[in-house]
Amino acid sequence: MEKPQTSISMSVIRRLPKYYRYLSELVEKGVTRISSKEFGRILGFTASQIRQDLNCFGGFGQQGYGYNVKELRDEIANILGLNKNNDAIIIGAGNLGQAIANYSGFRGSGFLLKAMFDINPRLVGISIRDIKIMDIDEMAGFIEEAKINVGIICTPKEGSQGVADRLVKAGIKAIWNFSPTDLNVPGDVIVENVQLSESLMVLAYLINERDRI
Amino acid sequence: MEKPQTSISMSVIRRLPKYYRYLSELVEKGVTRISSKEFGRILGFTASQIRQDLNCFGGFGQQGYGYNVKELRDEIANILGLNKNNDAIIIGAGNLGQAIANYSGFRGSGFLLKAMFDINPRLVGISIRDIKIMDIDEMAGFIEEAKINVGIICTPKEGSQGVADRLVKAGIKAIWNFSPTDLNVPGDVIVENVQLSESLMVLAYLINERDRI
Repeated sequence: MEKPQTSISMSVIRRLPKYYRYLSELVEKGVTRISSKEFGRILGFTASQIRQDLNCFGGFGQQGYGYNVKELRDEIANILGLNKNNDAIIIGAGNLGQAIANYSGFRGSGFLLKAMFDINPRLVGISIRDIKIMDIDEMAGFIEEAKINVGIICTPKEGSQGVADRLVKAGIKAIWNFSPTDLNVPGDVIVENVQLSESLMVLAYLINERDRI
Repeated sequence: MEKPQTSISMSVIRRLPKYYRYLSELVEKGVTRISSKEFGRILGFTASQIRQDLNCFGGFGQQGYGYNVKELRDEIANILGLNKNNDAIIIGAGNLGQAIANYSGFRGSGFLLKAMFDINPRLVGISIRDIKIMDIDEMAGFIEEAKINVGIICTPKEGSQGVADRLVKAGIKAIWNFSPTDLNVPGDVIVENVQLSESLMVLAYLINERDRI
């Protein structure tokens, strides 16, 4: 189902995975419908926030009935594109890269990990969960041949811009970036940064707030 | 400077680290003041959003002058509690735990890593960047003795609730949780989850959106 999607704010988009996660849990628990008020209570949002967010995508609730849990979950999966396939590679096969290779969330989001790349000859040739670590010089050829569309950067900060440049040159249009740096890429390349520092600062805030009371 | 902080929404709090990060960059570039309009352009927010957010903490701008960049950065650091000390331990010294131990962002956020714990006898006894990996049975004693107040959970999903229980029993009141599971803890324990799946779903959305155009 295609809906006109003009300029939906990133704040709304960033809330969608949370909707999806809680709706999936409700489906698992056998809940079939839920009011925006009750759903808001679970999520910690107001009912009007929820109605407003979901209205951005055409609205799904019915007055006096609420939301059909399974339908809404499937619709959000559809909006998020979780049913599409994205073939990905990891660049940087050190601790972080290996930890991400073990990450169980890829499948549920439509991502499939196809290979890992590193410059370290001691890592090249070994496999992590059936995913082979290859030499980074083989990367461009592999991207083209295997039609990879996502690069996951797990290198140290110093190497990340160089890796991004090589990915872009090889035709990659989407990057999941774990290095704590803002990558410089052409405008048509999507970069999603995993901002550990932001999460850590929120934790600092919450501790600080509590200790002041 | 203490300000009355009643119920500031988590959405506002989650934006503060971004303010802090961009203000730090502006300070480094030698920028001394900035209008809410220009600041909004850099951040991708509207000027009124920025004024509204910062008003939650008492407001800092001056009509016709804008914000003093360094003052605002320092004030946000203060609000975030980045100048406080939080001593932390990592539980789970596998790939993820070791990657987090190497994470450079601890110091800038007031966190200090004091030890790592694991159940794997092959890991216990070795050190990662001068941080010793100890047996998890020594954890409760260490927390008490070294006055640790933050536990960072890097165990596989299956072990994380058990670890959280042990942390809470040992008196820990704040957890940075990397395991992809909602931890069940008493109401006075802060849990900040690193939601990799949410970040990955946002990436899926952005790819899906672009490919539809």
